[in-house]
Amino acid sequence: MSGWSLVFDAYDPPSEKLREALCVLGNGYFATRGAGAESDADEVHYPATYVAGCYNRLGSQVGDRVIENEDFVNVPNWLSLGFRIGEGPWFDLDQVEVLSFRQELDMRRGLLLRDLRVRDGEGRVTAISDERFVHMGRPHLAAQKRRILAENWAGPLTIRSALDGRVINGGVARYSSLNQRHLAPLATGSDGDTIWLKSETVQSEVRIAEAARTRLFRDGREETPPRETTEELDRVAQDITLELGEGDEVVVEKVVALHTSRDAAISECGLAARNSLASAGSYDALLREQEEAWAYLWDQCDVDIEPDSATEAGSVQTILRLHVFHLLQTTSPNSRDLDVGIPPRGLHGEAYRGHIFWDEVFIFPFLNLRMPEITRGLLLYRYRRLDEARAAAQANGLAGAMYPWQSGSDGREESQQVHLNPVSGRWIPDNSSLQRHVNAAIAYNTWQYYQATDDFDFLWSYGAEMLLELARFWASLATYNEELGRYEILGVMGPDEYHDGYPDRDEPGLDNNGYSNVMAVWVICRAMEVLDILPAGDRKRLVEKLKLTEEETARWDDISRKMRLVFHGDGILSQFEGWDKLEELDWEGLRARHGDIRRLDRVLEAEGDTPNRYKASKQADVLMLYYLFSGEELRGLYERLGYPFDEATVERTIDHYIARTSNGSSLSEVVNASLQARSDPAASWRLFCDALQTDVGDKPSGTTREGIHLGAMVGSVDIVLRGYAGIELRGDALSIDPRLPEAIDRIRLKVRFRGHALRLDLQRERLDVAVERCAGDVVKVSVRGQPHELTASQVEVFPN
Amino acid sequence: MSGWSLVFDAYDPPSEKLREALCVLGNGYFATRGAGAESDADEVHYPATYVAGCYNRLGSQVGDRVIENEDFVNVPNWLSLGFRIGEGPWFDLDQVEVLSFRQELDMRRGLLLRDLRVRDGEGRVTAISDERFVHMGRPHLAAQKRRILAENWAGPLTIRSALDGRVINGGVARYSSLNQRHLAPLATGSDGDTIWLKSETVQSEVRIAEAARTRLFRDGREETPPRETTEELDRVAQDITLELGEGDEVVVEKVVALHTSRDAAISECGLAARNSLASAGSYDALLREQEEAWAYLWDQCDVDIEPDSATEAGSVQTILRLHVFHLLQTTSPNSRDLDVGIPPRGLHGEAYRGHIFWDEVFIFPFLNLRMPEITRGLLLYRYRRLDEARAAAQANGLAGAMYPWQSGSDGREESQQVHLNPVSGRWIPDNSSLQRHVNAAIAYNTWQYYQATDDFDFLWSYGAEMLLELARFWASLATYNEELGRYEILGVMGPDEYHDGYPDRDEPGLDNNGYSNVMAVWVICRAMEVLDILPAGDRKRLVEKLKLTEEETARWDDISRKMRLVFHGDGILSQFEGWDKLEELDWEGLRARHGDIRRLDRVLEAEGDTPNRYKASKQADVLMLYYLFSGEELRGLYERLGYPFDEATVERTIDHYIARTSNGSSLSEVVNASLQARSDPAASWRLFCDALQTDVGDKPSGTTREGIHLGAMVGSVDIVLRGYAGIELRGDALSIDPRLPEAIDRIRLKVRFRGHALRLDLQRERLDVAVERCAGDVVKVSVRGQPHELTASQVEVFPN
Repeated sequence: MSGWSLVFDAYDPPSEKLREALCVLGNGYFATRGAGAESDADEVHYPATYVAGCYNRLGSQVGDRVIENEDFVNVPNWLSLGFRIGEGPWFDLDQVEVLSFRQELDMRRGLLLRDLRVRDGEGRVTAISDERFVHMGRPHLAAQKRRILAENWAGPLTIRSALDGRVINGGVARYSSLNQRHLAPLATGSDGDTIWLKSETVQSEVRIAEAARTRLFRDGREETPPRETTEELDRVAQDITLELGEGDEVVVEKVVALHTSRDAAISECGLAARNSLASAGSYDALLREQEEAWAYLWDQCDVDIEPDSATEAGSVQTILRLHVFHLLQTTSPNSRDLDVGIPPRGLHGEAYRGHIFWDEVFIFPFLNLRMPEITRGLLLYRYRRLDEARAAAQANGLAGAMYPWQSGSDGREESQQVHLNPVSGRWIPDNSSLQRHVNAAIAYNTWQYYQATDDFDFLWSYGAEMLLELARFWASLATYNEELGRYEILGVMGPDEYHDGYPDRDEPGLDNNGYSNVMAVWVICRAMEVLDILPAGDRKRLVEKLKLTEEETARWDDISRKMRLVFHGDGILSQFEGWDKLEELDWEGLRARHGDIRRLDRVLEAEGDTPNRYKASKQADVLMLYYLFSGEELRGLYERLGYPFDEATVERTIDHYIARTSNGSSLSEVVNASLQARSDPAASWRLFCDALQTDVGDKPSGTTREGIHLGAMVGSVDIVLRGYAGIELRGDALSIDPRLPEAIDRIRLKVRFRGHALRLDLQRERLDVAVERCAGDVVKVSVRGQPHELTASQVEVFPN
Repeated sequence: MSGWSLVFDAYDPPSEKLREALCVLGNGYFATRGAGAESDADEVHYPATYVAGCYNRLGSQVGDRVIENEDFVNVPNWLSLGFRIGEGPWFDLDQVEVLSFRQELDMRRGLLLRDLRVRDGEGRVTAISDERFVHMGRPHLAAQKRRILAENWAGPLTIRSALDGRVINGGVARYSSLNQRHLAPLATGSDGDTIWLKSETVQSEVRIAEAARTRLFRDGREETPPRETTEELDRVAQDITLELGEGDEVVVEKVVALHTSRDAAISECGLAARNSLASAGSYDALLREQEEAWAYLWDQCDVDIEPDSATEAGSVQTILRLHVFHLLQTTSPNSRDLDVGIPPRGLHGEAYRGHIFWDEVFIFPFLNLRMPEITRGLLLYRYRRLDEARAAAQANGLAGAMYPWQSGSDGREESQQVHLNPVSGRWIPDNSSLQRHVNAAIAYNTWQYYQATDDFDFLWSYGAEMLLELARFWASLATYNEELGRYEILGVMGPDEYHDGYPDRDEPGLDNNGYSNVMAVWVICRAMEVLDILPAGDRKRLVEKLKLTEEETARWDDISRKMRLVFHGDGILSQFEGWDKLEELDWEGLRARHGDIRRLDRVLEAEGDTPNRYKASKQADVLMLYYLFSGEELRGLYERLGYPFDEATVERTIDHYIARTSNGSSLSEVVNASLQARSDPAASWRLFCDALQTDVGDKPSGTTREGIHLGAMVGSVDIVLRGYAGIELRGDALSIDPRLPEAIDRIRLKVRFRGHALRLDLQRERLDVAVERCAGDVVKVSVRGQPHELTASQVEVFPN
């Protein structure tokens, strides 16, 4: 069973970042995050649980500015489980000598394990063994088990088990001057071996109730010494003291239930937490169910690779699984029924305060072909905020729906107006909300989900309305240039966040961003297609509801044929109008002066310069088009617009931009590695390995301590799927065209599409396709360009 | 446009029940109920809004018993809109002379209209014209418009517009000794023309916020006289005074927004209510959208009948639409995303306190073939309560999941233990919770939804687990009778609530209820079928999760072949073992003594007798089997069990039980009318017309004032669809076999199934089928037993 665990067995120093990456355990409903190993003292031990969909807006002072700060909220600490010998100090890892230490994240079971032996100031040696998990099968439950062995001492041992509502949001140093306290205490209580605590988020008024049951065992038998319970308003604890002989071991089991006032199928959340706890079985029974739940998820989602040599690619397997693991912590069948999106840092860190960006576009391809029902839930999260997006468009003098760049709990724009450059110490105006392209990503995601599932009910009930409103938005953003006889989109930002304007223009924004203009045309084409697909009555209803006129759709058609694209050099699509007039950056000189120049923006700003002057980008922008579309689709769009499209230009375009990208966004390497999978396998593999290191590696410029980068994580898995396994959906057929890198001999995985389920085994010499479910009469697949039709239970071997 | 309105134009006396039936306006999220016309004085005018899914449990004193009382909660009164002339009394319909009165429920637009002229004690004649609606297209909004015309007077007029949190649950007289107050006040406020109020349900802590905007117009121009605002903790009001000249008319528009803390896509509910209100357009714009939203729903759901003569069948059309209208008030596309079930009284009345029973089984057939996405949402309501049902089974020493007879907010059993006989004044033990057959209805509904939609994702994610747990429950309820070599189910109640035990046995419950035993076998067969259908990985996951053993499924198979059915007479399935030994009831004698004997239980109990002694039932029990299954399906089940099945026995069985049914349940006529549609059209039509009168008619025994009977309402529509239009799903084909009653010449309606959409026009001489959407290559239909395949956009005419 290799490739299933991340292990750290040196206490000092595992990198803090690595430890953080390790410590995430949750399941999309009840996710835990913990500083983990440092200490078990109550005040320091600061694990946290994210309340799905429960944000919190607080006005806070930053310098002389009031910033509306919407955070996700860490829920009361349920891990708090301290101990002390006699009247000694409460156990604190920093105050003892660590004799041995081993920590393991067991991803197969979703379990965090820790074994350590310590010697205290009085020479007493204690062995401690911990296990904990948040239950993937019973999403309201979590559990931990601690063994304490008195190796060379005897005496009274006191266990303190608490629920602590004094948690803050303190995970991002830069936010420390913002209000960190988002929980108000409501009540605590206890009953026998159970304690409970109820809090409320201070602005959104979401109530959070936890109930915990603590039991002690010696030699397999439960012990019931008396308990001393301390009930404060924001914390409740039970102290349990028992006598240990030398060599005695006590086992503490703590099972916790969490409910919020937003839960379905409850009466009052405190009652619900106590009821859930009362029906929870033993720790061991819960663990067995946890193992089964994870076994199923891995059966659906694992990307099992067989490395060419055990060296480099061995860790590739482990890291790929870590990335899938984080995805499943953030979103899973358990979150399908919740009103939550995917924050860019997953549920791991507080950076970006839980706002929702466009990262989904890198995550949904993986989900669509594995658990599309999760994508559906996440698209509904957007649909429920359609009214807010409509209001935003209207407030900006535009039509349709304009989703925000940073989406807060109710869908309002939460992008910052200024941001701090830690290199220069200056506050810089932030125009990132001009990234209207999030509205193309949402349309793209909606359509791709429909393509992957053929879920007409979704299209009909939700997707069509979103696509129409998004097309309308893009159409309203386009202006007609009489002189050119072309439509233009002016004053926006593309995905490349290093360019937010022209060096010589006061107003922010760029004209004719190639990516945005092509996407606008694509969105409009899909909206027109949707109008064709809908049954007459439903089309009528939507057209009436949206007050969509024939003039409007006629203009859509016109825009879809006359949108302007700007090219430079030898037919290369310009990132925006005027790109060709920018200076070339002195990449080498800058690297010589600064070392790591991924964050080119900060480096240049500190030098009094700006990336706006240079042909230098943070991340793929034009190249996103090749990432999102097949050559065929792009050719169709170009031809509709009356522009030439040829393969040679594609290569030149990729070369042009890859040479001018700092990869300052973790998403850039994903795009570029995918694009080069076929054209330059070695370069692709290097970028892929680099992308794998984003969070696991210990780059000084990294921000993993503020939360992992979920888009890049899942994107890296997608490189294997789309880039190396060559799996893509084309219409109603699954296309499989593997191009295994040298380092990988075999890829095994499962794919679902349009109700079919296939198990694939891709090797150098053969390719096996097993049909696990056939939704209709046949499953259509295309293997290396050749179409085939498979039937239920068929196992087909395709030799190379 | 006939058949779209219910009109009352005599003020005194429209029956109170009729008035109540009229006054329901809502849309499943934000439903209103009003005493309506009696008075507009704030204190008396008591309209109410149901908070979907927001129940409330309160211990209350009844006699010497504490009853756990879970009510649905009336939300703060937003209709409160009083006026007075000068310093005179606030307008009160009871204190003036009514010169003319007309009230209309316009179902086509979902609008309640009222026109009246009154003369006060000082001879002043005022004309008042009201409109109001709860918005079907914007489910958080409602609006009302009032015109006040000073016919023969001049002077100051003061409008008082309020939000009033002092509402109680007072709609059911029998519950008046229970706690009626379920709302605690939180806060009120105002800003310009807007007032707002926030309350919280006292036990479940659901917060409810309302915001209202009141505007005045004269001659089409807004007037803005100063406002005097009164903010109390539980009530907020604005008084606006303006001077009217003789013949002047003022128009008051009040637009209201409602949000609760359970809403998705909000931050805090008070903020959400104010935001929703701020983005609401004018009354007229909202009304236009309301009309469009209803036009679409009627396009999907209307059953358009052309009566043979304009006399009797004319009102049939109106009442059928009233029944569909009530369904759409209770559940609609707006409630699809909410965690709500269908209460038996809809959202109209407080009887049964919002608990969820088995009525769905009469309602889903209509929804499945029109808007199955609503059924899906309602089945998820059950799925979310599966854990609670598991706990209930376990607590009763059974396996699997046992859904309660009366399901409370979190899915717990809320059936009463005693009930009051108003005839005798005695409290009677209530064994209704022994109606385990609700667990067959839920399985049946789950499977029928899957059949109607082919929604494998639902089956796979939710339905399969429910079906397996329900099969397991039934299997655990069955005991093996060694002597007979048959399984038996002992000590339960069937649908017939007049039989809860044997006259000579102390313990309640009956043995081998025919309906329950057959349903148990059917549920077990479907569960075994589901295990076959699931892909291997998913089956493994479920089997592991449920710890389903091979011994268990082997026993299922055994039960499905050896369940005992008890017959009497000439092969008639006995309602339960021992039915044949009961006495025949003296129906005529009893009718002579008591008149209406539908509530036979109360009549007999008052005489010191009990229906348990007689072959007399409240409602269809055995006959439910013929209602739910085709003859073919029943034959298959009988044959599997080794019992003979022939058509002649079917007829005898129907005759036997119809002759012994008091139709004490509103659902009984629905079943019997359906069964007789072909065999005895005249009897069927009589029962159908009787069923139509359940709520609209003014029967002394009726309980419409406590809420309409939604199951019977929708069931009556289903008589037309299944019984008269002869529309049924058979596998993947739609079977159409009309048998129009004499009184109906033509039925036009729309049907959706498995992604197809058809428009049907059934006439005496021909039958037209138009394909509005074809999900695959063809739509399979069977017309009068002949199979046909239709393609997209095809319109096929089948002559008779």
